[in-house]
Amino acid sequence: MRQRILVVGGVAAGPSAASKAKRVNPNADVLLLEQGEHISYGICEIPYYVGKVVTDPNHLVSYTPQKLEQAKGVEVKTLHRVEEIVKSKKKVIVRNLARNKVEEHPYSKLIIATGSKARKLGIQGEDAVNVFHVKTLEDGYALRKYMDEQQPKRAVIIGGGYIGMEMAEALISNNITTTLLHRGDMPMSGLEEDTRKAVVAELESNGVQFVPRSAVKQLIRSASDRVTQVVATSGAYDCDLVILSLGVEPNTELAQTARIQLGGNGGIVTDQRQNTSVDAIYAAGDCCEVKNIVNNKWMYIPLATIASRQAWVAGENAAGGSATFKGAIRAIAVKVFRLEVAQVGISSEEADASGFRVITEHIVGNSKVGFYPGNAKVHIVAIADKRSKRLLGANVFGEQGVALRADVLGVAIKNKMTVEDISRLDLLYTPPFAPLWDPVLVMANQLKKKV
Amino acid sequence: MRQRILVVGGVAAGPSAASKAKRVNPNADVLLLEQGEHISYGICEIPYYVGKVVTDPNHLVSYTPQKLEQAKGVEVKTLHRVEEIVKSKKKVIVRNLARNKVEEHPYSKLIIATGSKARKLGIQGEDAVNVFHVKTLEDGYALRKYMDEQQPKRAVIIGGGYIGMEMAEALISNNITTTLLHRGDMPMSGLEEDTRKAVVAELESNGVQFVPRSAVKQLIRSASDRVTQVVATSGAYDCDLVILSLGVEPNTELAQTARIQLGGNGGIVTDQRQNTSVDAIYAAGDCCEVKNIVNNKWMYIPLATIASRQAWVAGENAAGGSATFKGAIRAIAVKVFRLEVAQVGISSEEADASGFRVITEHIVGNSKVGFYPGNAKVHIVAIADKRSKRLLGANVFGEQGVALRADVLGVAIKNKMTVEDISRLDLLYTPPFAPLWDPVLVMANQLKKKV
Repeated sequence: MRQRILVVGGVAAGPSAASKAKRVNPNADVLLLEQGEHISYGICEIPYYVGKVVTDPNHLVSYTPQKLEQAKGVEVKTLHRVEEIVKSKKKVIVRNLARNKVEEHPYSKLIIATGSKARKLGIQGEDAVNVFHVKTLEDGYALRKYMDEQQPKRAVIIGGGYIGMEMAEALISNNITTTLLHRGDMPMSGLEEDTRKAVVAELESNGVQFVPRSAVKQLIRSASDRVTQVVATSGAYDCDLVILSLGVEPNTELAQTARIQLGGNGGIVTDQRQNTSVDAIYAAGDCCEVKNIVNNKWMYIPLATIASRQAWVAGENAAGGSATFKGAIRAIAVKVFRLEVAQVGISSEEADASGFRVITEHIVGNSKVGFYPGNAKVHIVAIADKRSKRLLGANVFGEQGVALRADVLGVAIKNKMTVEDISRLDLLYTPPFAPLWDPVLVMANQLKKKV
Repeated sequence: MRQRILVVGGVAAGPSAASKAKRVNPNADVLLLEQGEHISYGICEIPYYVGKVVTDPNHLVSYTPQKLEQAKGVEVKTLHRVEEIVKSKKKVIVRNLARNKVEEHPYSKLIIATGSKARKLGIQGEDAVNVFHVKTLEDGYALRKYMDEQQPKRAVIIGGGYIGMEMAEALISNNITTTLLHRGDMPMSGLEEDTRKAVVAELESNGVQFVPRSAVKQLIRSASDRVTQVVATSGAYDCDLVILSLGVEPNTELAQTARIQLGGNGGIVTDQRQNTSVDAIYAAGDCCEVKNIVNNKWMYIPLATIASRQAWVAGENAAGGSATFKGAIRAIAVKVFRLEVAQVGISSEEADASGFRVITEHIVGNSKVGFYPGNAKVHIVAIADKRSKRLLGANVFGEQGVALRADVLGVAIKNKMTVEDISRLDLLYTPPFAPLWDPVLVMANQLKKKV
């Protein structure tokens, strides 16, 4: 019988897994099912489309359904929501949303790539016409259309994570007065205190009203179903646009219909071959947990980079191959106006909780030779373990030369290098690109006095 | 008796070694002897001073002799040329150039940091008033002064290495018509063919007349001792300025007076503690050879980064400590007009000669997300070994995001990562900084099909 590989979810991991499966076994039928209208896009790009840095909406999509079918030989059905897995019969129950009809599709192998879902406030008004998540491409299109047509003047962003930062810049650069309400003291909760302080300073110096310790209580609506005021513990804020950026969590509703095992962070747990706990069912992407190879713990790290690699593994194995995904380190960056911020590895808090003897060091170096035009300061907040002398994580921030230096540290962390090892790295020194003592080396030389 | 540590050579390694020695043993007398007028400067910065990118000459010097004495407790004597080591009596014979008198200085420990010397043409006219090497700070000051006062219009650069590239840009940006004569087919002999082609294209598109296969035969001088024409095998070139950039070689004349062992590349060979073959004599910096940890061979890699680390080791050990320098990988970059070029590890030619089964791959990736404004192409020419599957070296070139990506590869090479390992790296993906598939990953994914 012809192999029939079903992939559920078409945003990031899904199309990759489907394409890989078809490439590995061209004789298999590969069907991709997506509940939304679009497939194969990068959620990370949406804030730049909303902020008009990217003007052509077609740039957001890598493959249309037609293009994926032609280029990769994968059959695609959009507006098809998979509602149930019947594992005993190896089939899925699918709702065709366009026709509101229920279909059944059998599978030989199933790949779950249902991604993440945006956290909600859980209060009335969240579905008003001027309240937007920034999660799907549909969200992005709708928000940009609203901004173009309604020309909002005052926005409230609720939630100070990565998307909140990017949306603040997108709104301010479009001359929208912006207030950012955050539950905690400082935004970007996974980062170190010094980094977070720098982020607050950057937000405020660019005109964002950052309000800490603010929990939203009520959304006041007008007759036309628009939120006109956000009432929070910190006060009331008039607005004509609300952005919700409360973070994401693994979307596992479908997986739960098959009683697939979830982990402590709510995501699907897989083995190194991306097998779930249920036979013939694989999972990949933001619906999964990830083995963090720094502390060897399962964590929730929803990143497209990890999703893509898991997707290749799931796709290859579903098609009969044998590939492995052995875990990842966290590597993430965000641009907050002129400030570049990156994190690799684990945070000092995570390191503490993992039983490491945590040492931290905050150094400031130069991105280029000090007197070379355009030089900027590079900050590194490094986290090391006093016992093993290993570097466990780092925040890097500054206006230039940040992200790729974080990658240098990421490779060091992945190789379990000690601080001493890092101080012996051969890094480039050329006036326009890097100083004699690269910030990475300055960090290692300082830190090795402490570990 | 009080320890007396003598350091010979004051440019890069010398001041670092002297400062380190004094810090490790504050009771020692540390004396730094330098034949030139200046100490503690970066040769790499000189082309930028000549090109007027850096305007303040004081920026070129990290420490004046006075500042080094005050800040580090190191006694400094400039215009003192050490002419002989009398190892049996642990003393050096020194010529005080200002007074043309000979002095003797005893030592408990001696550190040789005599650096490199510029290769010469070895023909008449090389010492004419308008012929310049770009090797010492004195050279840089003299060249810049000549340019300011004489306003040369046509220059000939002889030699297409790193300094030749930087000088071409420095001259062209000061509106000087520039011809670059090079003995070989293409400039930058250590790089891969595709990289070198890109360099030639960049030179030519910026108006440099690049002349390959050109050996200089004669320098025609005017009555005022100026070279007015360079006669080469490729033709005759009128000029009013000549730059010699023929490369450097280890400066070991002094070491040879003590019969210190040299290696196959003409540099001083040391052990991991920077001991030379002679008791109580250490060496550090560009006068030394370096164990290349990629192929485990001694090579000549004159780089300030390596010199600095060797200097710390030599200084610490001369002062009674115990530090090691275990070798290096080559990591070097140059800016050629808008093109950034970097090399890490060994070349395909070196890999061949070292017995590796060489596989190469040239990929083109994006520095940022493709449609993000300011994205530029990043080229990687990677060199791997088919037996061990290790990455051995890489050239990276393009207009942006080059140098630090080469550092990422350098860290991978230092950790002896295989191509497969590199394909599993967690690198950042954020539209303004890096695409989903970083060029490093594109390279690894392509290359792993071949190894």
